[in-house]
Amino acid sequence: MIPGLLQIDRQERRSAARWGGLGRIGRMSFEARKKRVAGAAKAAGVDALLVTHLPDVRWLCGFTGSNAALALVWGKGAPAGKRAVLFTDGRYTAQAKAEAVGTRVAIAAKSAAIAACEWLAEAGGERGGFDGGNTTVAALKQMRAAVPAWVRRRMFEPVGPLVAKLRWVKDAGEIWKLRAAAALGCRLFEGAVETMQAGMTETAVAAELEHAARMAGAEAMSFPTIVASGERSALPHGHATGAKLPRRGFVTLDFGVVLDGYCSDMTRTVHLGPARPGERDAYDAVLEAQEAGVTAGDVDEAARSVLRKAGLDQWFTHSTGHGVGLEIHEGPRLAAKQTQTLEAGMVVTIEPGVYMPGKFGVRIEDMVLVTAKGGEILTPSTKAWIEL
Amino acid sequence: MIPGLLQIDRQERRSAARWGGLGRIGRMSFEARKKRVAGAAKAAGVDALLVTHLPDVRWLCGFTGSNAALALVWGKGAPAGKRAVLFTDGRYTAQAKAEAVGTRVAIAAKSAAIAACEWLAEAGGERGGFDGGNTTVAALKQMRAAVPAWVRRRMFEPVGPLVAKLRWVKDAGEIWKLRAAAALGCRLFEGAVETMQAGMTETAVAAELEHAARMAGAEAMSFPTIVASGERSALPHGHATGAKLPRRGFVTLDFGVVLDGYCSDMTRTVHLGPARPGERDAYDAVLEAQEAGVTAGDVDEAARSVLRKAGLDQWFTHSTGHGVGLEIHEGPRLAAKQTQTLEAGMVVTIEPGVYMPGKFGVRIEDMVLVTAKGGEILTPSTKAWIEL
Repeated sequence: MIPGLLQIDRQERRSAARWGGLGRIGRMSFEARKKRVAGAAKAAGVDALLVTHLPDVRWLCGFTGSNAALALVWGKGAPAGKRAVLFTDGRYTAQAKAEAVGTRVAIAAKSAAIAACEWLAEAGGERGGFDGGNTTVAALKQMRAAVPAWVRRRMFEPVGPLVAKLRWVKDAGEIWKLRAAAALGCRLFEGAVETMQAGMTETAVAAELEHAARMAGAEAMSFPTIVASGERSALPHGHATGAKLPRRGFVTLDFGVVLDGYCSDMTRTVHLGPARPGERDAYDAVLEAQEAGVTAGDVDEAARSVLRKAGLDQWFTHSTGHGVGLEIHEGPRLAAKQTQTLEAGMVVTIEPGVYMPGKFGVRIEDMVLVTAKGGEILTPSTKAWIEL
Repeated sequence: MIPGLLQIDRQERRSAARWGGLGRIGRMSFEARKKRVAGAAKAAGVDALLVTHLPDVRWLCGFTGSNAALALVWGKGAPAGKRAVLFTDGRYTAQAKAEAVGTRVAIAAKSAAIAACEWLAEAGGERGGFDGGNTTVAALKQMRAAVPAWVRRRMFEPVGPLVAKLRWVKDAGEIWKLRAAAALGCRLFEGAVETMQAGMTETAVAAELEHAARMAGAEAMSFPTIVASGERSALPHGHATGAKLPRRGFVTLDFGVVLDGYCSDMTRTVHLGPARPGERDAYDAVLEAQEAGVTAGDVDEAARSVLRKAGLDQWFTHSTGHGVGLEIHEGPRLAAKQTQTLEAGMVVTIEPGVYMPGKFGVRIEDMVLVTAKGGEILTPSTKAWIEL
């Protein structure tokens, strides 16, 4: 233990409920997750782990602050009752104690990650791992410099996204939360359909939708809301602007909420006024591709082959989907040449689209829970052609 | 040039205005910035640079997409007219061409950063730099593996946040944008003061404020809105929750908007009902500390010493401020022991606070433009005691 660095507070922790919306997962769930991490760490040949990716930290101990490092050690030398210590800074003293149920909290005077390294160096462990995909080159250099050479040699084993990969398969509580977030998304889409009309700005559509999301309890939007109308619908990532919805043309809505930490993600494309030649055909092809993806094992190829048959695959310029959970973009990635098998409990998006520059674009996206029998759509809003 | 990888489109670029809100900086501004980077690169001993931090990419070429790498080369071997190439993916083909005025655009079939490395390897340059603070260990490993060994040895010189540091001092156009974002923040605060009343949830306060922000043209909030009421005001980072505003107690509002890419950041603490013992004294001390900071060269020490005299410094648990611009948190950092000199053109926050767990907290924050003569407050909303 390094004097002056740790201020582990032994006071009885206050009720998490008091802070509102925080720490609703029980201590036992966190213990179960830490056990799964212990198993994965053992398989990766390490008996200590530095966790700095914030969604991983939250998943393992409940802390939601913006600065944190969680040190885990399982080796023989590990001090009893101190196998997990959460490091953060003085802005989060009260919050960390309330949220990180069952985990010791230490307030670091310097970088949380460096403090965690120093603690791990003292706590023992034969071989310590870290996630090279979430540690910068500069941070690694600083951490290495902060520990003695003999510790350095055994402490910085890159083990990849060990914790993040465990998060791909959701537990029952997480599925419940993702279901609630997705259901809120569907209600918001219904509201948007009632609101939208020609002449309204894209920003106003986003403003109404986001206000309704907040009033329904969303902590935030899970990414910048996409409202792409008319020619702008050909931009796969066309954030809402001051552009006015046209009298005649597509509007693509792609948005998500964060509810109790978990993200939703859905896309619907509706049409204002009567369709022009080619628009309805493109919509029907994307819809067929999307539905083919939902029922297939190889989601990307199923969706892409439908668009290929329709002669539209050249305009499908992105991957078909991604995992979603505490982060809006998680694994697995659903793309060409991906070999990852879908497992029951994963929640993924399926979102093919076609984008014709200067003309129009269409995208349809659901969140899908992978089950033993196939997939369950968590965003059951209609995908039928909507003409406003 | 690597066949099949680059699809540099030579079509005339479409008007940026068409996409709304994008690319409002002229080609010449970007050229001037690239020249400043060339100078800094030379001073750092490199003649090629890989830029992957998205705000840096935006600052240098105007592209706002979520996946980008900008390759710059200035050496003798640099191909004429190809000294800057922006790499992104197929989702952004149209947007990149519209936004990245004066920069060649290449659509990469794989990672934008790896494609940029491969291009740099071919383009020449004696010594190539990268930003170790914005490159993960795993990404560096992949990039190194993507180029031949003889290129690898001269290409991955860690040069630190070379571009980000140039962004600390804002140019006239940036100051104009930051001024506009800050002014919108002030209007939103006035609206919130009219809206807030006991019994309203923190989330509803945030919802109204965010809706007004959107309707006034904000692209997004610059960070999750903090509405921390009653005892929760003692949480420096208390995001809005379902908690109801008390009849009697503080409410801290800390929020910012993104307007044309630039962030605002301000905090005001108001009181519902009559003050309890100690509350008014704490408010007055924080206000004095905040104002001392605005006029001082050593902002942190000026603010901290005021709170020290009031016996409240033990409750001031964070640094006093930070730079703000394309990112909500940029350099310089205003904290104890920082030796960075403030320069005219920097825009920083000055935000001392005191937080008494279980009781209450107060924070007051302005955005301040550093001038030759001192500082100009960009968020002139009143800081007088407000009792609602």
